[in-house]
Amino acid sequence: MKVSVKVPATTANIGPGFDCLGMALPLYNTVTIEETVLPGTGVEINVLANEDITDEFSLEHIPMDENSIVYKAVELLYNSIGQTPSELKITIHSEIPIARGLGSSASVIVGGLIAANELLGRPADEAALLSIATEVEGHPDNVTPAIVGGLVISSYEDDGGIVYRKLNWPDEWLITVCVPEYELATEISRSVLPKEVPLQDAVFNAQRMGMFVQAVNTKDEELMRLALKDKLHQPYRLKLVPGLEKISENLKHEESVIGCVLSGAGPAILVISKKNNLDKVKAIVKETWNELNINAQLYTFPVEQNGAKAVGVV
Amino acid sequence: MKVSVKVPATTANIGPGFDCLGMALPLYNTVTIEETVLPGTGVEINVLANEDITDEFSLEHIPMDENSIVYKAVELLYNSIGQTPSELKITIHSEIPIARGLGSSASVIVGGLIAANELLGRPADEAALLSIATEVEGHPDNVTPAIVGGLVISSYEDDGGIVYRKLNWPDEWLITVCVPEYELATEISRSVLPKEVPLQDAVFNAQRMGMFVQAVNTKDEELMRLALKDKLHQPYRLKLVPGLEKISENLKHEESVIGCVLSGAGPAILVISKKNNLDKVKAIVKETWNELNINAQLYTFPVEQNGAKAVGVV
Repeated sequence: MKVSVKVPATTANIGPGFDCLGMALPLYNTVTIEETVLPGTGVEINVLANEDITDEFSLEHIPMDENSIVYKAVELLYNSIGQTPSELKITIHSEIPIARGLGSSASVIVGGLIAANELLGRPADEAALLSIATEVEGHPDNVTPAIVGGLVISSYEDDGGIVYRKLNWPDEWLITVCVPEYELATEISRSVLPKEVPLQDAVFNAQRMGMFVQAVNTKDEELMRLALKDKLHQPYRLKLVPGLEKISENLKHEESVIGCVLSGAGPAILVISKKNNLDKVKAIVKETWNELNINAQLYTFPVEQNGAKAVGVV
Repeated sequence: MKVSVKVPATTANIGPGFDCLGMALPLYNTVTIEETVLPGTGVEINVLANEDITDEFSLEHIPMDENSIVYKAVELLYNSIGQTPSELKITIHSEIPIARGLGSSASVIVGGLIAANELLGRPADEAALLSIATEVEGHPDNVTPAIVGGLVISSYEDDGGIVYRKLNWPDEWLITVCVPEYELATEISRSVLPKEVPLQDAVFNAQRMGMFVQAVNTKDEELMRLALKDKLHQPYRLKLVPGLEKISENLKHEESVIGCVLSGAGPAILVISKKNNLDKVKAIVKETWNELNINAQLYTFPVEQNGAKAVGVV
């Protein structure tokens, strides 16, 4: 039996939503798991890059990382029903840029998990899949939208469960994902964060998170411009992501731009804007990367409303 | 000329919303300002307690505090148009318990401001009133709902302006305000808060603020139960407000109770519950105060949707 699961890219944090918000985007990794018939062959994992999309982004050093997390996710699922995986061939078709803050690791965790769940006859429900995926990934921000799609607010509760709700991101607000050529490992980007923050910064982000959710619910553009500010992670990461400050600065007089935020732990950047004037906005972003001597790719996306799904079961 | 302004009580913070959320409640102070004709009489301020409501709560030591803030608010408004107040008689009819976390100080600031604004022919618009009131009070949480009514999320922006939005609190969720006989000055309750908090606590509250706003927008009771948790102020204030932990504990098995939070800086406590089973919930709360040997009054309220308004201009 062979199962393929297509999983969307995800962006997390999104302004004030550090470790709170995540959103699925229409770029995909596909994880295929095949039960091989020859005993003793063990688990084989291959990563295939989609050259159309990722030719500028080297995948060379990635397979081992992806291997270990996709395997860990599959193993945890098997273990949860008292089994161990054996004789599996796992193939990852990768279209999501790696180590850019677009949820590539969450996508392979989720893809592996859901493919294995299909192979095993769906022993795990959504809550169990969320819980295992979060255990492997370390936080629910990316795995939740990768599984359920859309824009989600999620939290990790004391009992290990994930609570999430989908929010309706207005179609009028485009998301332009700016992916620079350089990578930034999440661990490095996490390492610059302080253990403690000023109480007033905590209040600042709580206010903005409330404003963000209200702005999304009421399509309140004026409120969203204020809500997209953050004091919990971006200020500490500015030096690791040279594009963010410069792009924000260069776009600040563009009326159509609602905000400019880090995608996940970076280095990708999201520009949130209205539909008018998109070409000019993109030109300014490209020019800024040029000034910084950094190659970058730009994608303008709607939100992907669907989460991971099995696209082939044979 | 004489102007009377009726101003609602307010509760702030409300679970995760420390320095973010505020709500108007149907208890009122009325501030009357009268231009006296005799020159040289200066500004005279009187506070009259409504004995029906506040007989258990001594007002004896309060007038000077209230005097100074109501006068400061009036003076700032006069100054903003290049004048100074003189020959005014200010009378406060007080129904809101003082130093309990129900916005008594915000109410007299707002009442004084709006009455003076009427006297002067409304030179200040809502934004200017919010800004002056916040300057006197120190934060916008109580003055904003006192001025505009309802449940509001507000923030204090870099330019000194107040940004707020009203949220639609579901009618099905009752608010029982439990007002103990003892007072707690906001300054004391503020003094126990740390300057810095763990980053993960900041994330916790940001998640809950997002969940709170989503829960209110979608009347999602299950989400609200989780959203009402807080790590930014209540844990530090527990020792100052003996009722909170005990009441929460004693209500935790009541299915109709959605949450139990501090009102403002305390010591009043809000119990948020569904309509069924209210008598039992109130009985448990009363019994808990009895166990603690603290007299308390309970009021079950809907949200007051109207803010301060002039009730008499002669």
